Amino acid sequence: MNKIITIGRQFGSGGRDIGKLVAEKLGFAFYDRDLIALASEKSGMSHAVLSEADEKAASPWLYAAVGQSGQTGFMPTNDTLFAVQSQIILDIAKTENAVIVGRCADYILRDEPVELLNVYLYASDEARIKRVSERMGITGQQALQKMKRHDKQRKFYYDFYTDRKWASHVNYHLTLDSGKFGDEGTAEIIAAAMNLK
Amino acid sequence: MNKIITIGRQFGSGGRDIGKLVAEKLGFAFYDRDLIALASEKSGMSHAVLSEADEKAASPWLYAAVGQSGQTGFMPTNDTLFAVQSQIILDIAKTENAVIVGRCADYILRDEPVELLNVYLYASDEARIKRVSERMGITGQQALQKMKRHDKQRKFYYDFYTDRKWASHVNYHLTLDSGKFGDEGTAEIIAAAMNLK
Repeated sequence: MNKIITIGRQFGSGGRDIGKLVAEKLGFAFYDRDLIALASEKSGMSHAVLSEADEKAASPWLYAAVGQSGQTGFMPTNDTLFAVQSQIILDIAKTENAVIVGRCADYILRDEPVELLNVYLYASDEARIKRVSERMGITGQQALQKMKRHDKQRKFYYDFYTDRKWASHVNYHLTLDSGKFGDEGTAEIIAAAMNLK
Repeated sequence: MNKIITIGRQFGSGGRDIGKLVAEKLGFAFYDRDLIALASEKSGMSHAVLSEADEKAASPWLYAAVGQSGQTGFMPTNDTLFAVQSQIILDIAKTENAVIVGRCADYILRDEPVELLNVYLYASDEARIKRVSERMGITGQQALQKMKRHDKQRKFYYDFYTDRKWASHVNYHLTLDSGKFGDEGTAEIIAAAMNLK
């Protein structure tokens, strides 16, 4: 049975960096934005379109417009992307041990025969502002706006495509304040939790 | 600087057992119901009264009754217990490394010069029903009722005496599903988190 670690995360809490560290420690594959590239190739949709749709739920207005137009066999880009990514995540889980960041992987794999460790990362506003402003070379105020917007999108995406509530600890086995433990420490704790028994 | 691990927990998630294991692993002191005995001795209040009041917030009706009676210098038992326990927790934090279960210790120690690790434990209803019914020799239905009642009391107590929301992951550095990892595994992860760097 393959081992899969899914990482949900607040924007700026270091999910990508920490996920990579965990994958290195455990010798697991790592999937994040790379999924987009895979999804793009598999579906034949343009990379630009899929990047734009990534982790954004389909707009209700779009459904209304499609309904009125009378078209059939059409799915909004976001739903297509979700379906394609879900298939890729299911394939990964059948193939190898992996760390998967975002993309509702915890939900998509909930009934699969895998050893699943669902992790959620968050951090204080201060810690996230510092990370985001330093990485992107923007002011703290700009970083805060970016954090709020992205987290709203992530929440909407997760709540839209699952029957769960994003960031509620009951979805996850382990919820960590990455600001408290640092990237390396957080990765160590996650790896230790995966290696138990 | 002393190291203090506080453990908030859902009823039936094994907070007491896991806290003891963590304390053993790290060579820390352990405080749970023993606090009551200490509080009792210190305040001169009867053990029975304090046990009854433990982790229940003072009733608003009691405040009203006291107000009408015109008495001064009187505090409801629960508030006295909270004040006495807070002082004991502050004293512990000045004296030794310790694991403290419940009693809003995370909040009481928030501004103290200690190395603080705040942990919250939960588990699925199934896992908690199993633990509670086996330990207390009651049916699953009775266990579920007990869990609901106790968690309601704990939430009310925590929310009453702090400006935080019980069980919200932002209060804690580490939130764990004890049913996923088992008592021993959960204790190992907590000890590992405390021993980082």
